[in-house]
Amino acid sequence: MPRLFSYSQFASGSDKVKAYADKHSPVITCDNQAKRNQPFKVKVKIGRNVKHPNAPDHHYEYIQLWNLETLISEVRLQRASYGDQPVQIETEFTFIPKVSLRLTAMAYCNKHGLWMSDEVVVHVTDQPEMD
Amino acid sequence: MPRLFSYSQFASGSDKVKAYADKHSPVITCDNQAKRNQPFKVKVKIGRNVKHPNAPDHHYEYIQLWNLETLISEVRLQRASYGDQPVQIETEFTFIPKVSLRLTAMAYCNKHGLWMSDEVVVHVTDQPEMD
Amino acid sequence: MPRLFSYSQFASGSDKVKAYADKHSPVITCDNQAKRNQPFKVKVKIGRNVKHPNAPDHHYEYIQLWNLETLISEVRLQRASYGDQPVQIETEFTFIPKVSLRLTAMAYCNKHGLWMSDEVVVHVTDQPEMD
Amino acid sequence: MPRLFSYSQFASGSDKVKAYADKHSPVITCDNQAKRNQPFKVKVKIGRNVKHPNAPDHHYEYIQLWNLETLISEVRLQRASYGDQPVQIETEFTFIPKVSLRLTAMAYCNKHGLWMSDEVVVHVTDQPEMD
Repeated sequence: MPRLFSYSQFASGSDKVKAYADKHSPVITCDNQAKRNQPFKVKVKIGRNVKHPNAPDHHYEYIQLWNLETLISEVRLQRASYGDQPVQIETEFTFIPKVSLRLTAMAYCNKHGLWMSDEVVVHVTDQPEMD
Repeated sequence: MPRLFSYSQFASGSDKVKAYADKHSPVITCDNQAKRNQPFKVKVKIGRNVKHPNAPDHHYEYIQLWNLETLISEVRLQRASYGDQPVQIETEFTFIPKVSLRLTAMAYCNKHGLWMSDEVVVHVTDQPEMD
Repeated sequence: MPRLFSYSQFASGSDKVKAYADKHSPVITCDNQAKRNQPFKVKVKIGRNVKHPNAPDHHYEYIQLWNLETLISEVRLQRASYGDQPVQIETEFTFIPKVSLRLTAMAYCNKHGLWMSDEVVVHVTDQPEMD
Repeated sequence: MPRLFSYSQFASGSDKVKAYADKHSPVITCDNQAKRNQPFKVKVKIGRNVKHPNAPDHHYEYIQLWNLETLISEVRLQRASYGDQPVQIETEFTFIPKVSLRLTAMAYCNKHGLWMSDEVVVHVTDQPEMD
């Protein structure tokens, strides 16, 4: 089976190894609270600080957002969208949570495989009563 | 071949027909100017004013963003992300334009087929000289 | 909106034009009869006689099989699967028809856009009574 | 992160548990030898012996074929293709191997998550000299 890579597996490596892991790692950014049944936005960026090259033979193909075992959404990336130049790819997902979330992003580089983000926990609460 | 639907084909219909077309039509929102080789954001919303039902057997499966004949990116939607409730689905694409754009969104409803947005023109210009 | 290309649009062109259209055109092959509620197989090949190049910056990204306005299935192709060499890409879809079919394949080349096959009609009939 | 399921994790369970795992498990079928740079076919079936239900709210969404960390191809399944009836979903991938293969299939059920096949090894050899 394909191995799943994450930044933490490379965190004790050399600067070169860490830069390699950094530019492949998806990072989730979102609020840590959400309202039940209201649209909620989650950003995913590829690369903590380092840009991914995006050459014709080396580019990201998809980013998936998971809540534990449930796939929330998937973005299919086109190489050409990044103009074949180094960039920190980013995307935004909008969805409607019903229960609290444990989010992970998985992203596939056609040359260096499947990479996972750290897990992010989001507490989903009912909206306050208006009176 | 699959027919391609757009709001304008239904615009002279009854209120019921127009509501049907409205809730299926993708709408692009973005600036009409972009900087060459800089990340640019485009929002696509399904439904001009009316919400799509998103029932288990009736939901959107994907939204594609095209620049003329070139696919820029595609979002794969999961029914569960909308909690099986009516909502105006929205998504945001980030990409790096090199030339001026003529954008169209295409979105597929598993029950009512392939829908197109109006075309949106974006002028891409070089960044102003700093001095 | 993206134009949809098909071989017939280029059929009266020069040999070079026809070879260009040939190597981009999806072709459906299947029986013209199917049994209701039984698995049915449909092959789609890219290229009537001419091979598509499949270079790192020029390759097919997906093939969709449609029954009129309904998407039946989609194959996501990876450039690497064709070893960056000219080949007639082929794929096989298996699905279960309930009603007679009017099939079209749509395939997307990242350099030359969206191509359609000719329509293929399949009559779906109930299985003969056994006695 | 999403857990990855496989039949072997459930193989010592009750008959009910084994049937659950069986109907979700992708199974690879192919020759154990392939010719370098020649098209090679791999079948993937969901379910060893038990049929997956394929109801509107419970169906397979995709099947991916991997060679170690490299994605070879992906099929996007449409619920409607299986007529909302129990069936052993199957698909066929055609690709061109350059090196020996260690294949795994991964398949996603929208209700029960991501399932992996056993690994299948394929020896890729040069074609015999003709004389």
